[in-house]
Amino acid sequence: MTISIGILGATGYTGAELIRLLHVHPEARITYCSSRQYNGKPISAVLEFLKGYFDMELEEFDASAIKSRCDLVFSCLPHGVSMAFIEQVIDSVKVVDLSADFRIRNAHVYRQWYQEHTNPGLLSQAVYGLSEVYAGDIGKARLVANPGCYPTSVLLPLIPLLQDGLIEAHGIIVDSKSGVSGAGRGLSLKAHICETGESFSAYKVGHTHRHVPEIEQELSSAAGTSVSIEFTPHLIPISRGMLSTIYVKSPHTGDELKNCLQAFYRGKPFVRVIDSLPATKDVRGTNRCLIHLSKNETSGMATIISVIDNLTKGASGQAVQNMNLMFDLPEAAGLDYVPVFP
Amino acid sequence: MTISIGILGATGYTGAELIRLLHVHPEARITYCSSRQYNGKPISAVLEFLKGYFDMELEEFDASAIKSRCDLVFSCLPHGVSMAFIEQVIDSVKVVDLSADFRIRNAHVYRQWYQEHTNPGLLSQAVYGLSEVYAGDIGKARLVANPGCYPTSVLLPLIPLLQDGLIEAHGIIVDSKSGVSGAGRGLSLKAHICETGESFSAYKVGHTHRHVPEIEQELSSAAGTSVSIEFTPHLIPISRGMLSTIYVKSPHTGDELKNCLQAFYRGKPFVRVIDSLPATKDVRGTNRCLIHLSKNETSGMATIISVIDNLTKGASGQAVQNMNLMFDLPEAAGLDYVPVFP
Amino acid sequence: MTISIGILGATGYTGAELIRLLHVHPEARITYCSSRQYNGKPISAVLEFLKGYFDMELEEFDASAIKSRCDLVFSCLPHGVSMAFIEQVIDSVKVVDLSADFRIRNAHVYRQWYQEHTNPGLLSQAVYGLSEVYAGDIGKARLVANPGCYPTSVLLPLIPLLQDGLIEAHGIIVDSKSGVSGAGRGLSLKAHICETGESFSAYKVGHTHRHVPEIEQELSSAAGTSVSIEFTPHLIPISRGMLSTIYVKSPHTGDELKNCLQAFYRGKPFVRVIDSLPATKDVRGTNRCLIHLSKNETSGMATIISVIDNLTKGASGQAVQNMNLMFDLPEAAGLDYVPVFP
Amino acid sequence: MTISIGILGATGYTGAELIRLLHVHPEARITYCSSRQYNGKPISAVLEFLKGYFDMELEEFDASAIKSRCDLVFSCLPHGVSMAFIEQVIDSVKVVDLSADFRIRNAHVYRQWYQEHTNPGLLSQAVYGLSEVYAGDIGKARLVANPGCYPTSVLLPLIPLLQDGLIEAHGIIVDSKSGVSGAGRGLSLKAHICETGESFSAYKVGHTHRHVPEIEQELSSAAGTSVSIEFTPHLIPISRGMLSTIYVKSPHTGDELKNCLQAFYRGKPFVRVIDSLPATKDVRGTNRCLIHLSKNETSGMATIISVIDNLTKGASGQAVQNMNLMFDLPEAAGLDYVPVFP
Repeated sequence: MTISIGILGATGYTGAELIRLLHVHPEARITYCSSRQYNGKPISAVLEFLKGYFDMELEEFDASAIKSRCDLVFSCLPHGVSMAFIEQVIDSVKVVDLSADFRIRNAHVYRQWYQEHTNPGLLSQAVYGLSEVYAGDIGKARLVANPGCYPTSVLLPLIPLLQDGLIEAHGIIVDSKSGVSGAGRGLSLKAHICETGESFSAYKVGHTHRHVPEIEQELSSAAGTSVSIEFTPHLIPISRGMLSTIYVKSPHTGDELKNCLQAFYRGKPFVRVIDSLPATKDVRGTNRCLIHLSKNETSGMATIISVIDNLTKGASGQAVQNMNLMFDLPEAAGLDYVPVFP
Repeated sequence: MTISIGILGATGYTGAELIRLLHVHPEARITYCSSRQYNGKPISAVLEFLKGYFDMELEEFDASAIKSRCDLVFSCLPHGVSMAFIEQVIDSVKVVDLSADFRIRNAHVYRQWYQEHTNPGLLSQAVYGLSEVYAGDIGKARLVANPGCYPTSVLLPLIPLLQDGLIEAHGIIVDSKSGVSGAGRGLSLKAHICETGESFSAYKVGHTHRHVPEIEQELSSAAGTSVSIEFTPHLIPISRGMLSTIYVKSPHTGDELKNCLQAFYRGKPFVRVIDSLPATKDVRGTNRCLIHLSKNETSGMATIISVIDNLTKGASGQAVQNMNLMFDLPEAAGLDYVPVFP
Repeated sequence: MTISIGILGATGYTGAELIRLLHVHPEARITYCSSRQYNGKPISAVLEFLKGYFDMELEEFDASAIKSRCDLVFSCLPHGVSMAFIEQVIDSVKVVDLSADFRIRNAHVYRQWYQEHTNPGLLSQAVYGLSEVYAGDIGKARLVANPGCYPTSVLLPLIPLLQDGLIEAHGIIVDSKSGVSGAGRGLSLKAHICETGESFSAYKVGHTHRHVPEIEQELSSAAGTSVSIEFTPHLIPISRGMLSTIYVKSPHTGDELKNCLQAFYRGKPFVRVIDSLPATKDVRGTNRCLIHLSKNETSGMATIISVIDNLTKGASGQAVQNMNLMFDLPEAAGLDYVPVFP
Repeated sequence: MTISIGILGATGYTGAELIRLLHVHPEARITYCSSRQYNGKPISAVLEFLKGYFDMELEEFDASAIKSRCDLVFSCLPHGVSMAFIEQVIDSVKVVDLSADFRIRNAHVYRQWYQEHTNPGLLSQAVYGLSEVYAGDIGKARLVANPGCYPTSVLLPLIPLLQDGLIEAHGIIVDSKSGVSGAGRGLSLKAHICETGESFSAYKVGHTHRHVPEIEQELSSAAGTSVSIEFTPHLIPISRGMLSTIYVKSPHTGDELKNCLQAFYRGKPFVRVIDSLPATKDVRGTNRCLIHLSKNETSGMATIISVIDNLTKGASGQAVQNMNLMFDLPEAAGLDYVPVFP
């Protein structure tokens, strides 16, 4: 089997990462790439490093072309835009949406944090694409809402612990750090190497980042009760990499907590619970998530460190993993990489 | 007045920073530099960028030379070593110790975290050199224990709030990030640009970093009750800069908390409470500390961000500020810099 | 004496650097800052790290205000714009122009590389502000054309050698590398940390960079014959720093060449000929230029390495040095810094 | 066919890169890894990011084990050490030597630049492993001397032009820039992120770098006459990436020179001659070499820019490419990657 793939909004960082990953995927072939801004040009004129590897012409969005040429579409369009295009093709092709449009199950909450949802009916069909947690549903889904990068780094360590009731559902503090590629290819002083390079800063402090409701939705679902978090994202002066430091209360020992995580991820190809302290470089360019947990038995607080590559497991890698699940391929097909080190 | 200055262990990063700052200080003159490893060489053979600026010959430690040539000595020696040298000169010269040897008031606690203290008698004479908090005592001190970098970034925002009883003394979480220069000039894979560059990681998680007892000592003193914290240090792939993200509980509004901080630091030249989010670059090379506070009124948690340059306000800059206080000079003498931006 | 200073176009990187340097200058005081884009705002709203240091309100360009409030104006305006403003104030105030508008003595050459010159008459009054070479003329000048960064790094090592006829005037190859701040604060993918960070590239190869005619003008003047160079600029993924590697032919020994340079720069505070290999970090934030020369006696080629900070000696630092010369102050007044290391 | 692979000195950067590349190679399987320093440990204890991917136990060098378990050995041992081990196995297994021991055909020249050669007899059997140039010989070789990183970046653009007599053989100037990983995993201040980060410098100027005789040997061979170059290597503050800027004289037009290169590399999978200016990021993690050429028709000088990843095409990637040639596999087997961008 070869899956024919379309990519909407192919010229940004998540599009580029999809192309990198699919280039060596044994069962996938890109047959369609759209770009509103650059249609008519070869994609390698916009992403020059692709020259000679992948020179497909960028097209305007065309629902009928997609339906005739694709089995699955990855949408790398911005939130608010993505849903309008997906609804035109979802009857004929499977979709993995990398935007936020179908992540929030409650249209009211979506409106609070983003904007009015224009297709709430479709919301109920979407499956949240946290692969290790929802693999079964993803396998049967037509529309997968691929998780945000911060949520992925937070949910993978916390969901098993909350599901088993091993940590307290309140008072969770998440201190996350991300490479700048998470903000995309758009221009801003925040991405200017002279301003962000050789520096470190927080942004969107105090429960204001749009990934908060997504994280809280999934934590609440795992805990069976409403969960609120403190969340502070920070910018690391590197391109790729995300590390979340998470503080939780627990009456259980560190070993019990680690055993829970290890049991949950046993046999899963991309998540490892490790004893050493992970660095973002350990997962760079891979679909992996490394988790470290240490317990301060005096205070009862556990400190959890998780690392991912924000563009791979935090975006396009997990999207391909979801595609594998949707087409009943081995979960790690085309994703079994060793990190580019050093 | 010109103060004659000696620097013990002058060839490391804090020594180099002292030389940079004192070079333009209106009232100080370096008259003695020691190095165990490089004595006999000009310091500019070890710190090549000093060539032509400052070529003083490095000498072996010599108590009588120090006594005859110095009014004040900065010790940049490692902990455990520093106290043995300081005790030989403290009867004749003032000392600012940048090591940890006189920071911990309780010799028993010092032994737990470091080693046996060889001069507990001297401990009681030492003043903790957090300039903005202990200015009065520092002014009268012979021996000042210059604070660690992490403690400086944590204590400046928290002490006023604890002293006024505006935040809860338990459940404080400190998530700190530091440039690599904090680890000094020694060689290790942790400082190898290929391993630490383009990466981000935590280290010494779970109440194990040696700055923990120093922070807890001062927070407890401010709160009037024993304070325990969770503390996670991280490495930023840059040379200089430190940002601490601190989570505290409070029944008071964000404005009340900010007012407290603003009142405490009114008229102090180096600490500012600001509404925008500070970056480490905003203070690079300066003796400043910028503090941002935001309150999540729903959860009752405040998130505090503080930034310093770990080598300036976190080490040598604060040491010079303490010298100014000890010699009754204007607090900002020789320290009134604009950051090197960008 | 206190010199009253105006800065035109104060919110870019050279403006920010001027403010940093003048903040500690013993004889200068900034009395006027203009910005077309941000007039009416405090400058610290645009350059946030200045908050509390320097909050002067940005004004629109106003010739009469400048004449009444300033002794000297630094123009940080873009080329093509700068000359139009300078001509309105040059009768009353001295001007150091950091743009290219008065660097090229021949209006025809200026037009070839830039655009039509709108005030060729003023050209003849301008002195090229390479401080170490033209100190005498600069001291008497009303209008100083501050050199470009690449030209400064190339001319300082080459002019003495060409003046003394020690190297061949043809076949000079200049391979230069610059930090990204040289391209200014404007937004472009070239300055995006994800594209330029962790990478290295050349740009404007093959005699196309606008600093070429400026370099060739001054080399020709020094050689007494027309000099053409090969010039390749590159981008280093850092903010500040410039290194030029220059290849020249010479029948003389390396020692003879070094002696020539050392004699030329004896007693000059900012240029040093050194035996070790300089790094850009050795001069970061300073007005220094370090020069290394090695000779391949077999081939007859000398390799010259020079380093400067592109924003300091390559722009605003040299501008202040020129101000010092124009007001008969000590050449190093306000510029005697040790680099921020590490 | 599955080739059984041994790696000698597997824990350095070139060893790690071999493991990354072979992990996804369709026809290779690592069956033996040696380490003098860490034998007995799993390799993932030394290269932690391999944990779970590749945990093979490191063994002492054992010639009989190698002979029984390997078809081919990659030697990542240091020069001077490598030859002593290779001679013990070369009768039974094929070898790709990543050290310099068999690159210099003339034992006398080897002694001048390195040390006494202990097996000059074996020298004559070795084939220089510049894949695109010596593919035929490599295919028949038992012992391949894998080229150095600088030589690879210089020889690929120059050999075709010299072979066709299109450029002058004298006066070639090579200005190269390398990421720090080229210096290996050893500890030194040169690799300390605080010293090398945010900086740029040259090293081993003036015909002193050990890659000079290797480059000159191959250029001379291509030109049919003795070629001497000027060569200056520089350190870029990044981990991976190499860019060489090469200046050559030619009576031919830029188009003629580009046509020669394009004809030479037509159908070769890894080398491209491109019109845009390449960045090291365009080839990061790949086995590619991108070449740009521009001609200054006035001066007769051509400026050539080539980029490679110093650890891939400059070391382990080319080593795998050579393995493919030695086993008659498709040249790009296991090497057809898109770069990790951004």
